[in-house]
Amino acid sequence: MHHTDIVIIGAGPVGLFTVFQAGMLNMTSHIIDVLPHIGGQCSALYPEKPIYDIPAYANISAQSLIDNLSLQNKPFSPTYHLNQQVSHISGDAQTGFTVTTHTGTHIHAKVIIIAAGAGAFTPNRPPIRDIISYENQSVFYAVTQKSLMVDKNIVIAGGGDSAVDWALELYPIAKRIAFVHRRDVFKASDYNIAQLRILAQDNKIDWYVPSQLCGLTGENGQISQVLVKNDTGDIMPIDADILLPFYGLSASLGDIKNWGLHFDKNHISTEQSTGRTNINGIYAVGDIATYPHKLKLILTGFAETASAVHDAYHIVFPDKALHFEYSTSKGNALPL
Amino acid sequence: MHHTDIVIIGAGPVGLFTVFQAGMLNMTSHIIDVLPHIGGQCSALYPEKPIYDIPAYANISAQSLIDNLSLQNKPFSPTYHLNQQVSHISGDAQTGFTVTTHTGTHIHAKVIIIAAGAGAFTPNRPPIRDIISYENQSVFYAVTQKSLMVDKNIVIAGGGDSAVDWALELYPIAKRIAFVHRRDVFKASDYNIAQLRILAQDNKIDWYVPSQLCGLTGENGQISQVLVKNDTGDIMPIDADILLPFYGLSASLGDIKNWGLHFDKNHISTEQSTGRTNINGIYAVGDIATYPHKLKLILTGFAETASAVHDAYHIVFPDKALHFEYSTSKGNALPL
Repeated sequence: MHHTDIVIIGAGPVGLFTVFQAGMLNMTSHIIDVLPHIGGQCSALYPEKPIYDIPAYANISAQSLIDNLSLQNKPFSPTYHLNQQVSHISGDAQTGFTVTTHTGTHIHAKVIIIAAGAGAFTPNRPPIRDIISYENQSVFYAVTQKSLMVDKNIVIAGGGDSAVDWALELYPIAKRIAFVHRRDVFKASDYNIAQLRILAQDNKIDWYVPSQLCGLTGENGQISQVLVKNDTGDIMPIDADILLPFYGLSASLGDIKNWGLHFDKNHISTEQSTGRTNINGIYAVGDIATYPHKLKLILTGFAETASAVHDAYHIVFPDKALHFEYSTSKGNALPL
Repeated sequence: MHHTDIVIIGAGPVGLFTVFQAGMLNMTSHIIDVLPHIGGQCSALYPEKPIYDIPAYANISAQSLIDNLSLQNKPFSPTYHLNQQVSHISGDAQTGFTVTTHTGTHIHAKVIIIAAGAGAFTPNRPPIRDIISYENQSVFYAVTQKSLMVDKNIVIAGGGDSAVDWALELYPIAKRIAFVHRRDVFKASDYNIAQLRILAQDNKIDWYVPSQLCGLTGENGQISQVLVKNDTGDIMPIDADILLPFYGLSASLGDIKNWGLHFDKNHISTEQSTGRTNINGIYAVGDIATYPHKLKLILTGFAETASAVHDAYHIVFPDKALHFEYSTSKGNALPL
């Protein structure tokens, strides 16, 4: 069981800035995210996209924004729990909350701040019966260990960055790569698409374009063949050890809906000036939070979480008066 | 008469970010500030002080923050009216407002956004009878034209950066400099203080420390002598053409108090989610604005003005629906 002042759910930009704000008020924090990395959508969906409305940045790439927020957090050494989705919370503001993740991490905290954006990002599953029984054994939605791919027959499916880039990356170490996509159009860097086409033309990879995944054979979690169907309806089997479907990510609120919070459609209803939800000790900030005239901007989320953290101070330190200080006067004491 | 969509009162960080937010929604803006430069307190009072709570900056000097905000505004070419204080506003949201400054500038605008921080900064006046009759002729609170100082007998009074730095700067061109300060302690860079002391020891400037200004003689706006009183009460006359008192700046709300806005102590009461004041078409954001649970942080002001500008859109373009877009999707069209 971990112990901390604040559990932050979501490691996107607003969650990350929450770590900093908490640290400035001498509160510790743990931060949980379902993705294998910090940065939320910014890092997962559009890392190289320029953002123009972060104050005092004429433009900044989404990934640089995350990197800078992470650097700003360094003095406060947050504890990250990545690759984990919160499955359950219990307790209350009087006794403290226990936050449990689906991998069994337990964190006891005085306050919970939900900065979960559009919800938990999970990979889109191809519409293949029984695919679940192969997941994490021979079907993977992310490559976390390249060593598992050495000398394997790998089927890669999808038309985006991940599919194209992983095909190029794994080609030198795999036994054989088969590439499957439903149409001959790709969303990836022009250079990488061109590289991939050269491999296909030279017959160095098997090219099933346009084709779609339509089935799997195998047993005990290990696939033996991936079935694909082409434009004219012909079904072809591909011998395969591993299937990597890259069909993008979808966000879903998942279990958050079951925690007793008041929702307005898919957003948690909050009091704008404090970030308070209907449950004392649980706050919501950033894109997941709503109130009248809400603007879904990253900079708005920054201000919301500053307010939430200041309000949470009174729960974390019920006997202390919050002596408000500007960072300019406080700054000298920071362990930078 | 100038014409624009939004008049912004105050060119501090929040006022500057207002220009950007307005530009992103295709609204033009003019920005007025009483100081001779943009940046408000950040530039006037603590330009080199590090600020730690600007999101995605581990630390940034106050002046760099201003420089970056100014750079971010560049695509929208705002019109600046510096060295001017708003003296009067008239009109309403139906017909538009006319904003008049004390130097006679008139600007017609559909919306006014007040981002005036702690108010207008004006120089502190030494407590000398009749000093007003010499101001801007032979008594100056800022040096805007060095050529006026050539070959003059100059009395510089004060103990801060401005007094010390201007003494060093004007020494080579003045006929003679007399330096007056009430105690032998200075708030300036150590190096510059040391340089000043060397000039005094070498009798290259006249050194009236500790002494205080106590009177002026002269006629028709031109001083002839500055009177100073030392610790033991002796009064000494100094022959002088020019007096430069650097006694710091004080903020005051001034005429803003007379515009019919509702105040809560020295702050304009606003609706947090829109920045609206009690007068339709006039908004207040940043440190001058208040509402329940207000946090006086620069980052909070950024969010407030984003909300105000979005709300103002409906006054500027009454017939258009605001199609909300993220900067990431909109960004490509920016003239950067």
